[in-house]
Amino acid sequence: LLRSGSKGNAGRPAASLHRDARQLLLSTATELFAVQGIAATTFAMIAKRASLTPAMLHYYFKDREQLLDAVVEERISQFILYVWEPVEPEGDAADSIRGIVDRLLEAIENMPWIPSIWLREILNEDGLLRERVLRRLPYEKVRSVAKAIAAGQARRNLNSKLDPLLTIASTVSLVMLHTASIKTWATVFQREPLTKPAMKRHITALVLDGLRHNDTGKSAKSRTKKR
Amino acid sequence: LLRSGSKGNAGRPAASLHRDARQLLLSTATELFAVQGIAATTFAMIAKRASLTPAMLHYYFKDREQLLDAVVEERISQFILYVWEPVEPEGDAADSIRGIVDRLLEAIENMPWIPSIWLREILNEDGLLRERVLRRLPYEKVRSVAKAIAAGQARRNLNSKLDPLLTIASTVSLVMLHTASIKTWATVFQREPLTKPAMKRHITALVLDGLRHNDTGKSAKSRTKKR
Repeated sequence: LLRSGSKGNAGRPAASLHRDARQLLLSTATELFAVQGIAATTFAMIAKRASLTPAMLHYYFKDREQLLDAVVEERISQFILYVWEPVEPEGDAADSIRGIVDRLLEAIENMPWIPSIWLREILNEDGLLRERVLRRLPYEKVRSVAKAIAAGQARRNLNSKLDPLLTIASTVSLVMLHTASIKTWATVFQREPLTKPAMKRHITALVLDGLRHNDTGKSAKSRTKKR
Repeated sequence: LLRSGSKGNAGRPAASLHRDARQLLLSTATELFAVQGIAATTFAMIAKRASLTPAMLHYYFKDREQLLDAVVEERISQFILYVWEPVEPEGDAADSIRGIVDRLLEAIENMPWIPSIWLREILNEDGLLRERVLRRLPYEKVRSVAKAIAAGQARRNLNSKLDPLLTIASTVSLVMLHTASIKTWATVFQREPLTKPAMKRHITALVLDGLRHNDTGKSAKSRTKKR
């Protein structure tokens, strides 16, 4: 699903060549957008980086709006679908959160430009993909997880201090921010960048159990008393 | 500490006027930087918005580098100091986290441009304040909290699945991202923007106790067994 342009298309070399050039341009564009932002990226830069002519870029995408439409429809929508499609509407809240973190990290491995674009161009109030992507968010799936959280809170099985919808935003935000700044923290604290499994363990454990969770489970009561 | 330029300076009206103009220019600059980014903000825009002349801006700040130095030294450093200075090196990890969340939210109330600048210009690999601010991070304080977390993990009082340093990054990230996108989530989910107390409760509860924490404390054991 996430590796576009990898399907075979035997017997149609011209069509396949076209598709490859188009995919190459889309990949090059997303990479540049992630590094320097959409506003600072011209058609000439994208063409040069892809070793194609600006005329070719214009052949595939009439203008920037059309290019941005394609980025959202053919790349970002795939990302969203990959992460959210498997969420079961009636599923367990913790299982859903675990699955979302897993798939976010997997999808980002294939689309490493996502976190930066998400921060710059979607979350930012003047982000250039904002409106396009907000229209495509998987609202029903998000609401179903929020509903599962609220139901768990009503049954007193889940932490009632959390805002259900914001818990989902928190989870996604942690993955996006920590993957976007993986090099920064490694530099700042002079250590190896966190691996994907380490990131997964940290984020899942934080969202599901929090800092004060005691793995052994034995002193949960004494902890509660202390507060 | 966070309200610059509000101290009286009786008997020196000229000096006070100068300081006020300078402070106004700094405030205007930070607001514009937050909304449209530093790269897209010219001296002319800042002067116009402050109803002063570009010549006056140049009188106070020779060039953009000098203006950025002043933003970091006189504003962002104050922000960092306010949040981190009260952290006790030998303090309890959970208390430290609670304090950091509290003061971050308080400081952002006075400097609402901080989260956007933090995302755009500090965390971003090509952010224009990045190097300046990374040099000023309160490394000793951050390491002392990480050390307290690691000690709690060693005593099996705290969740050993969390990465101590990343836990601090997670906490700061959640505050910055959720305050930066407060309007976005309100729009997206068609509800009132979260208030500061609601934000504080959510983030503190998430980081310290997580989703699966049961407020009543009574079914902690059965929860543990189920896994």
